[in-house]
Amino acid sequence: MQTIRVDTPSAKYDVVAGSGLLSTLAVRIERVAGRLPRRVFLLTSGPIWALWKDCIQQSFQEPPIVLFLEPGEKSKTLGSVEKLLRQMPRAGGDRGSLLIAVGGGIVGDVGGFLAAIFMRGIPYAQVPTTFLAQVDSSVGGKTGVNLPEGKNLVGSFHHPLAVFADIGVLGTLPDRELRAGLMESVKAGIIRDRALVRFMEEHADEVLARNPKALEKVIAASIRMKAGVVNRDERESGLRMILNLGHTVGHALEQATGYKTLLHGEAVGWGMIAALYLARKRGTISGGQFDRLQRLIHLYGPLPALTLKAKKVVAATSGDKKNVGGVNRFVLPIGIGDAGVVEDVTAAELEAAVAYMLAQAGERAASRQAS
Amino acid sequence: MQTIRVDTPSAKYDVVAGSGLLSTLAVRIERVAGRLPRRVFLLTSGPIWALWKDCIQQSFQEPPIVLFLEPGEKSKTLGSVEKLLRQMPRAGGDRGSLLIAVGGGIVGDVGGFLAAIFMRGIPYAQVPTTFLAQVDSSVGGKTGVNLPEGKNLVGSFHHPLAVFADIGVLGTLPDRELRAGLMESVKAGIIRDRALVRFMEEHADEVLARNPKALEKVIAASIRMKAGVVNRDERESGLRMILNLGHTVGHALEQATGYKTLLHGEAVGWGMIAALYLARKRGTISGGQFDRLQRLIHLYGPLPALTLKAKKVVAATSGDKKNVGGVNRFVLPIGIGDAGVVEDVTAAELEAAVAYMLAQAGERAASRQAS
Repeated sequence: MQTIRVDTPSAKYDVVAGSGLLSTLAVRIERVAGRLPRRVFLLTSGPIWALWKDCIQQSFQEPPIVLFLEPGEKSKTLGSVEKLLRQMPRAGGDRGSLLIAVGGGIVGDVGGFLAAIFMRGIPYAQVPTTFLAQVDSSVGGKTGVNLPEGKNLVGSFHHPLAVFADIGVLGTLPDRELRAGLMESVKAGIIRDRALVRFMEEHADEVLARNPKALEKVIAASIRMKAGVVNRDERESGLRMILNLGHTVGHALEQATGYKTLLHGEAVGWGMIAALYLARKRGTISGGQFDRLQRLIHLYGPLPALTLKAKKVVAATSGDKKNVGGVNRFVLPIGIGDAGVVEDVTAAELEAAVAYMLAQAGERAASRQAS
Repeated sequence: MQTIRVDTPSAKYDVVAGSGLLSTLAVRIERVAGRLPRRVFLLTSGPIWALWKDCIQQSFQEPPIVLFLEPGEKSKTLGSVEKLLRQMPRAGGDRGSLLIAVGGGIVGDVGGFLAAIFMRGIPYAQVPTTFLAQVDSSVGGKTGVNLPEGKNLVGSFHHPLAVFADIGVLGTLPDRELRAGLMESVKAGIIRDRALVRFMEEHADEVLARNPKALEKVIAASIRMKAGVVNRDERESGLRMILNLGHTVGHALEQATGYKTLLHGEAVGWGMIAALYLARKRGTISGGQFDRLQRLIHLYGPLPALTLKAKKVVAATSGDKKNVGGVNRFVLPIGIGDAGVVEDVTAAELEAAVAYMLAQAGERAASRQAS
């Protein structure tokens, strides 16, 4: 078990990664909250609750009030938030209540936002049950939902009391989701942790076979990287931007495919390929580093095939909320283990990078059809 | 012109009260924001905009993007918030944008909440155009909307960059709204400012005739009182509770009358009558103080007649969100110029206080019918 400290100007809390956390959840939350309040809400999804209900409930003397979110990105809306909010006062919730979010990134984002805005903010704990949520969305205090106009356009910064990332729950995760989640760990290595890059290169088989020790190592390193960045830049004014490596093009791919074909991590995987290309063209990474990092991404693939026009993808990047004042910000790796933000990427450069990435993604489609 | 400083752990900003603020709005906001961003949104209501559009727009080189909220409490919903949020990215809004809320308390609450959750928070300025909003809702960082289950159940703490309370706009305010708003100033005097109580007793005619000097004095004193309390207790953990004098019963009256009959200030006025009765019974104010303060409230009346059952009102108090863990918290004046919170008010005591208040409110109804 590993404990990583998040320590920002507005909040200090622990992220615990290891086994056996779900079965001891109540006592762990009680320890950080001081005491369990009269009303404890637990937000989850039906499939997750079916799997872990017994394990979680036995740890509570008084069972929590369970709120359900339909699985899938389509539930990440203000409409869902309103339905859930309305259940809380009806069940006796007040500003002393506490919320626990048990699920993937969507449950975490919606749960955190519920906690942020119910009665102007109640405490909450994150219990991420997917690899992606464990290494990424549960750390950093970002909460929120989508609008029809774009992803994550609405939300709050609201830090949890604690995050409990139970490695044990990953046993039931579909292989594709694990691989997609691992893209965030690949990203963590590229932007901040050479040792993680090497470990992931050398131990891909163990990680993908879900060897608990290997998983814990990758997860803890990924969380530590993110916590380190968030600690120094809580509000994404500078350094925290580097966490968006692969995300500008990644979000554009998700938008261009209607959020249907790609898992988030897969979109980031392809987005990183485009970013690597751009970095190589600009000389912030060498040809050797380019080959090595591209190989690492595909080691944790396969990334799904794509048949998109480069222009459509480039157009979709302009709606990305990482852009302030119309500037096309872009995160580029600098060697292995460092990254920086550039603001002068031209449309032509971006189009070339996207075209390179789409050529790979298209070959994949062609070879699939041929086979 | 008077400037009152709000200085909390999470934000420091000025509340400016005086004349001629609207016509110089752009330069004032530019001064606090550093510069005006590419996209400036202005949330207002149709009637307010019709009155002040020309005055406000001439101060901007680039006209702001105007968003409209339907007047009335019925607009203070998540549905309205969603509609407004969706307009912002479509109009090119990004996380560098700024929002100005020009209107009464509802525009301020919704506008502040929009700014709190659009892209996880953008800066905003409050330009309150009602007396109530100037002295109360624009100071303190509380933002939010109602649920069908109760008022202000959803929201954020999000402080503005600055508040500009232009006394000039009060000239067009209906008399009833002015009187209702003045209840918050009466409250300010009772809980924290003996001198304000005396001024309001001695200068009621000038205040109600909207003499600018008298109004500025009452408004600035009320804001100064609220800012002083908020400065010491930003998150309503203790001292800030005293701002809720009259609000427990006041909210119950609003709820019991379906938010239709009473203006907020009027409900607070009646709520203060109940609180004064309770305080007199408990001996935290003398009989003489009770008479004097009750007289002051009616001096700024008339408060509307009510025909309600005490039991219904008492039942409605239990849903008030100021109650944590089922405890019936109640703010009581202590002499004139001080107040405290009690948690041991029994149902019988509360019912007696509500019955006393309703008897007055009913007499009012009876005398109105007789006349």
